[in-house]
Amino acid sequence: MYDIIIIGAGAAGMNAALYALRNGKSVLLFEGDAIGGQISNSPKVENFPTIPAISGSEFADKFFDQITEHGAEFEYDQVKSVQKTGSFFTVKTDYSTYEAKSVIAAVGVKHKHIGVPGETSLLGKGIYYCALCDGPFYKDKEVVLIGDGNTAMQYAIVLSNICSKVYLLTWMDKFFGDKALEKVIRNKPNIVHMPNTQTVAFHGEGGLTAVEDLDKISGENKLLNITGAFVAIGQVPENEQFAHLAKLDNAGYFIANEQDMSTSTPGFFVAGDCRAKKMRQLATAISDGALAAVSACNYIEKLG
Amino acid sequence: MYDIIIIGAGAAGMNAALYALRNGKSVLLFEGDAIGGQISNSPKVENFPTIPAISGSEFADKFFDQITEHGAEFEYDQVKSVQKTGSFFTVKTDYSTYEAKSVIAAVGVKHKHIGVPGETSLLGKGIYYCALCDGPFYKDKEVVLIGDGNTAMQYAIVLSNICSKVYLLTWMDKFFGDKALEKVIRNKPNIVHMPNTQTVAFHGEGGLTAVEDLDKISGENKLLNITGAFVAIGQVPENEQFAHLAKLDNAGYFIANEQDMSTSTPGFFVAGDCRAKKMRQLATAISDGALAAVSACNYIEKLG
Repeated sequence: MYDIIIIGAGAAGMNAALYALRNGKSVLLFEGDAIGGQISNSPKVENFPTIPAISGSEFADKFFDQITEHGAEFEYDQVKSVQKTGSFFTVKTDYSTYEAKSVIAAVGVKHKHIGVPGETSLLGKGIYYCALCDGPFYKDKEVVLIGDGNTAMQYAIVLSNICSKVYLLTWMDKFFGDKALEKVIRNKPNIVHMPNTQTVAFHGEGGLTAVEDLDKISGENKLLNITGAFVAIGQVPENEQFAHLAKLDNAGYFIANEQDMSTSTPGFFVAGDCRAKKMRQLATAISDGALAAVSACNYIEKLG
Repeated sequence: MYDIIIIGAGAAGMNAALYALRNGKSVLLFEGDAIGGQISNSPKVENFPTIPAISGSEFADKFFDQITEHGAEFEYDQVKSVQKTGSFFTVKTDYSTYEAKSVIAAVGVKHKHIGVPGETSLLGKGIYYCALCDGPFYKDKEVVLIGDGNTAMQYAIVLSNICSKVYLLTWMDKFFGDKALEKVIRNKPNIVHMPNTQTVAFHGEGGLTAVEDLDKISGENKLLNITGAFVAIGQVPENEQFAHLAKLDNAGYFIANEQDMSTSTPGFFVAGDCRAKKMRQLATAISDGALAAVSACNYIEKLG
């Protein structure tokens, strides 16, 4: 029996672990994907207190070392279900079953797909969601980047430093993110902004050969003959397996008490990008993690 | 005319500055006391991501360097009044008058002091105001905790899981908070409740060595030979001069929208310990700062 099981080793989950461990609680942390969650995809983090610049993966590694040092137990495993029976929680993974007094779900979000022909079959064969991970495969080649937010803009800058040309396709004629990033993009001669553009298909057999786009102003379809496309159009939570424990909003995000991260199930707390909120940042994730952990500790104390 | 004036250079105010500057906004930051706010009193911060240990003052210095590097302007000056006239804000200090499109108040709180000999000179050298932050430095040692409300009771529980013994000193023979917490405290064998106790002095040169208390029933003074004392007799915000801009709760804390830090005055945002919330931590302060800054940037964009 653990005091607290934390699902997800992103920034929220790791900070929950740090707070719970410093409160003298036993902690088991699960992650089925990359340590660090979303931040591990970020090539450069410049908006975190006292750290002028750090790569997201280095941030994740350091944070993981820190919580391990404090005594966190870790399992690289996918949580399949969480059930509350009496006062306690049963957590099942592919390989085993665990028990805890409290559970914190910090499961993050997954990348949104465009939903056009070729996208699924060419995933990993020319279509990618992480510029940092897969951009280097397109050194000195032309690539397409689809998206208009901060992540898309950051990716465009990363890719422009690796690739010969970056076609940046945005749905409307503007970006939705930091002005500072936009200014950088405007000054990059090898980033070609294609506004008012809708991607309609990915072509290729066994490997991407072209991206087909609709120019929403002229109404004409264009074919960009490239072999690498990066999609950065947003994210979706994957909370369905917890819907019996916590209310979800229309988009599938957890609805939590903003002040303590509690849900409709006593002892079940949520934290980070997976909950309904206005802004998803490293700073907001670690705040959520701290709140959820302290709430879980208080909950456990009252169990007696 | 500045884009954003931020009042208070604690963690919330500095993170608001960082976010606003990276969004291309001009920022003027005021502080009338110590850079870093509450955290600058903490001898060792061990609950911040990727930083195993740092002194609060070093954290504050590094953070201040970081925002200065990004172009923050700073005035060491006490803000006396903020008025909104038309779309803009006028900020008056002892020495001058400034204008801004948006104002973020991150003015923090002051811990209530007992007001006895030794308290000021031993601050951070055995006397602390945050058990979550500084309790772990007294692992397996005896400590004193002074206070009788919810924060004091929560701190007693936290400390009981870390320290060998917690002397819990209350002014009267009862607690003023959750019965559930009180029950937990009664069941902790290593919490020694000392009711009707008035702390009269802290002893030590360069470090706490003993807490002197008056037993109000017997009239006798006692000496507790310990090296760690936690004072949790409350905090007070200092928001009176902003009460015409934002609603305050009964205790004087700003009431803000939890998702974006907005108040009843458009363009006036708040962040950090000075607002009504359940938990006041470094992590929650920087989250507030990020939210307030992004909200202020959005507000300014809409001004045109």
